[in-house]
Amino acid sequence: MRSVTGYAAPAAGAPLAPWQFERRDLRPDDVAVRVRYVGVCHTDLHAVEDSPAAEFPLVPGHEFVGEVSAVGSEVTRFAVGDVVAVGNIVDSCGKCDYCLDSQENYCAEFPTMTYLGVDRRDGLPQRGAYSSEYVVTEKFVYALPDGLDPAGAAPLMCAGVTTWEPLRRWQIGPGMRVGVVGLGGLGHLAVKFAKALGAEVTVFTTSPGKEAAARVLGADDVVVSTDAAAMTDRLGRFDFILNTVSAKHDPSPYLRALRGGGTLCMLGIPDRYEPEALALLIGAKNLAASGSGGTRRTQEMLEFCAAHGITADVEVLPAAEVNTALDRLARNDVRYRFVLAMD
Amino acid sequence: MRSVTGYAAPAAGAPLAPWQFERRDLRPDDVAVRVRYVGVCHTDLHAVEDSPAAEFPLVPGHEFVGEVSAVGSEVTRFAVGDVVAVGNIVDSCGKCDYCLDSQENYCAEFPTMTYLGVDRRDGLPQRGAYSSEYVVTEKFVYALPDGLDPAGAAPLMCAGVTTWEPLRRWQIGPGMRVGVVGLGGLGHLAVKFAKALGAEVTVFTTSPGKEAAARVLGADDVVVSTDAAAMTDRLGRFDFILNTVSAKHDPSPYLRALRGGGTLCMLGIPDRYEPEALALLIGAKNLAASGSGGTRRTQEMLEFCAAHGITADVEVLPAAEVNTALDRLARNDVRYRFVLAMD
Repeated sequence: MRSVTGYAAPAAGAPLAPWQFERRDLRPDDVAVRVRYVGVCHTDLHAVEDSPAAEFPLVPGHEFVGEVSAVGSEVTRFAVGDVVAVGNIVDSCGKCDYCLDSQENYCAEFPTMTYLGVDRRDGLPQRGAYSSEYVVTEKFVYALPDGLDPAGAAPLMCAGVTTWEPLRRWQIGPGMRVGVVGLGGLGHLAVKFAKALGAEVTVFTTSPGKEAAARVLGADDVVVSTDAAAMTDRLGRFDFILNTVSAKHDPSPYLRALRGGGTLCMLGIPDRYEPEALALLIGAKNLAASGSGGTRRTQEMLEFCAAHGITADVEVLPAAEVNTALDRLARNDVRYRFVLAMD
Repeated sequence: MRSVTGYAAPAAGAPLAPWQFERRDLRPDDVAVRVRYVGVCHTDLHAVEDSPAAEFPLVPGHEFVGEVSAVGSEVTRFAVGDVVAVGNIVDSCGKCDYCLDSQENYCAEFPTMTYLGVDRRDGLPQRGAYSSEYVVTEKFVYALPDGLDPAGAAPLMCAGVTTWEPLRRWQIGPGMRVGVVGLGGLGHLAVKFAKALGAEVTVFTTSPGKEAAARVLGADDVVVSTDAAAMTDRLGRFDFILNTVSAKHDPSPYLRALRGGGTLCMLGIPDRYEPEALALLIGAKNLAASGSGGTRRTQEMLEFCAAHGITADVEVLPAAEVNTALDRLARNDVRYRFVLAMD
């Protein structure tokens, strides 16, 4: 076994503390990655607060960049010293229609996540990337394209691909009007992507103070969603709206903002939908949801980011300040993603 | 004014009784139609039971076939004696994007329905087609193609176009697997249409006794939706499922039956969706709804029906038995649509 150090929550809701633990010895198709930068995702916060007792000590972290530190005997695509990135999926059944289509995010048996649950081959608990080293199947390791800032690239691996996937599924491009609801870790990347794909981009936010920042990111228009007159002005306007807000809210205004045939894609599912909201679908509209991305779309996104110079806007903190990062994230006090530097 | 006779509910929930009332004198673009056959739709039942007091006396009826009995001075497409059909939309704003695209069913100002509400020009109450004559703007009158049985054609004008519209919107054709939930007035026409369009058609029903009838209509497969094993066998199978059931039910099993990227289209909106159901959308699925059809799709459907010899399977009753029809419809005792003969 490989001894590593990391930051773990010893119990639900407890602050993270340094923890030494073991990872598996390399299997023939495994790559060991020395973690350099790991993004701090809202999922990490929820996992620490709400996971079942059996998951603790819990090491979060599922979007990271680092250097290959060792490779298994059958690894062909990577060598020690390569700069690589890993996201929130680290294994899958490999046999279902989705996996065969490189859409492992929809694996019929549910993919193995970077942390939480167990490895599907040896049954050992999955520990995340808030740690000195991570061990992962070669198939789910990506070469980091040259020219991408490694700290800013770490959030691409979850926040990035989660917004990239639906933008590509609905073929966003020139001539389309796209709305992005929420300007956080996911939303700010969705704006950069949609703009670089050629769409006209409108940000919906509850924070009037975010308008200037949204325009810097590339937004053509910013709407404060609590401004009824502004929302009325945009009725029936959008081809596609990507809703990145997972907090409980009424999606009806965004269904009204769609043109006929348009799609509202939810990245979180609000607590409850009332039939009043769903009745709006009768205006020839679609409701959909999306769950991160698979290997094909992840690779495609990295290449697109390299070509367009896109990374996340991040605030880098030393790993020892992990609890500060989580506390500030819980208050939405970050623009737009924290990244922990592990070294 | 034109004096007509019909059947009206004098108050909410009361039996229908013969009633003499007046229709407007013909405007230049009006057509008067002597009603011969009028379909009995569930909407009629709901309207009689639940409409506000101001709507009574209420004359139902919004899918009918008859003969032109008079035309206004500017009518060009019809002459006295023509056999025509009229559906559930009889006017619309004519100016919004939807109307300009002949999708008046999504009119931004809401279309004028065959009954309920008021005429958008003179403000007089709309009275339905359970009556000797109906007066309607030429634009919403359709020539009945030769060869279509007039009684069986009447339900095409609401039940038919309401299922035709989504089948066309999702481009149903050969090589596609289509599910139809519910085998009533709408469902039985959806089966005929989807089959004639070349799709493989599966009927989902709660009634094991409907299997033979479904196969006669053209179903390739029939699944009793309460049979968990049968439903499991069809997981992830369908490109498109048209749900014609408006009674309260859990749509989750049909979302599970979709392949990735597939769409569940609701023709009714159940009372409430739980987030558990909506979370299934994350499997790259879409939820949509559809609301009847506009003039383009109505015309297209009639031509398709003539080419393929499709009409509704109907039970024709004399108009005087209207209350029998409504009572039996309330008990689902009809295969598949009642039609009242007005003469």
